[in-house]
Amino acid sequence: MTPNRLDQRRARTRAALLGAARDLLVSRVPAEVSIQEITDAADVGFGSFYNHFESKQTLFDQAIAEVAGEHREMLEAGTAGLTDPAEVLSVAVRLTVLLAQTGPGMARVIDRAGLGYLDALAPAGLRFLRRAHAVGRLCFDDAEVAWSCVGGATLGTLRRALESSPAETGQAGRQAALGVLRLFGVPEIDARRIAARTLPA
Amino acid sequence: MTPNRLDQRRARTRAALLGAARDLLVSRVPAEVSIQEITDAADVGFGSFYNHFESKQTLFDQAIAEVAGEHREMLEAGTAGLTDPAEVLSVAVRLTVLLAQTGPGMARVIDRAGLGYLDALAPAGLRFLRRAHAVGRLCFDDAEVAWSCVGGATLGTLRRALESSPAETGQAGRQAALGVLRLFGVPEIDARRIAARTLPA
Repeated sequence: MTPNRLDQRRARTRAALLGAARDLLVSRVPAEVSIQEITDAADVGFGSFYNHFESKQTLFDQAIAEVAGEHREMLEAGTAGLTDPAEVLSVAVRLTVLLAQTGPGMARVIDRAGLGYLDALAPAGLRFLRRAHAVGRLCFDDAEVAWSCVGGATLGTLRRALESSPAETGQAGRQAALGVLRLFGVPEIDARRIAARTLPA
Repeated sequence: MTPNRLDQRRARTRAALLGAARDLLVSRVPAEVSIQEITDAADVGFGSFYNHFESKQTLFDQAIAEVAGEHREMLEAGTAGLTDPAEVLSVAVRLTVLLAQTGPGMARVIDRAGLGYLDALAPAGLRFLRRAHAVGRLCFDDAEVAWSCVGGATLGTLRRALESSPAETGQAGRQAALGVLRLFGVPEIDARRIAARTLPA
């Protein structure tokens, strides 16, 4: 094989391992999954695992980081064009809770990752919160505590949504968004209007 | 041994297994801990494990339920005598975040249990929220979503507090309490006063 084709094969193997890890995370606890099981699910040789990942932990961490990256891109796309930080926040909370319906596999991986998932999204989340604070739209003392509160509330609601009907999920997302807007001192009438708005298509 | 002494020994073995599970949960993932390791840590025979627990999962679930029971009793004691539900909520959030300092072992077990921990506290939490809603002090639509939001925000802040200094932890608890009071529509001036109050001794 030419070096180029070798690179392509390496990339495919790596992607297959990451994909298998994501699939397994939907229903399994990482500690209970063996490397053999992962390479079997990825349909690659057992020996190739350590050419790509240092450990099982590294693979699962990267699979979760990959989900966080897609989640971030989804939120950026879903809030593109919105200029009011309160509205960006509301849409981000609601789209995340709706993942229980729109991306149940992704939602299960996020739920499995738990509150530690917030670390993977923290750089973007903190940047957003600090900008919104600087323009005086969201009111809080410490950005990292603010991030823990809004992130925890959103993941808590997503977890509940995974056991709910689609109608309940939309309603839960609106309630969480309203709560989070209030949490940051957005005036009531404003918060109600924003949280109830039709989501961007 | 008389039946009574046998009962006592059974209770001691059970307590030793639960204690070992709690100790192990502070630093380890349940799936990575073997039953042998648990019985060694509890200083009981391997064979006695299944006389007390159906599976490793059952043991860890009961250890977490035990922590939740103590947590609930701590919150009940810490808020006894308070009549304003907003103040009860504020103190409960702050005492929970402070566990990072006052009960770091307990806090690590709670953090390990993740958002699923909220299920163990849900009966008491939902009862409290529904009463506070009925008297018009806390404002929300669905009590279970409200519980997910306040619980998620509190556990998110506790998680962060586990990496923080004592001074930061107290401050983070007050910020989370203020945020949660606002989230339930408590008026700003009221929320600020309540969240800043000296904690009951």
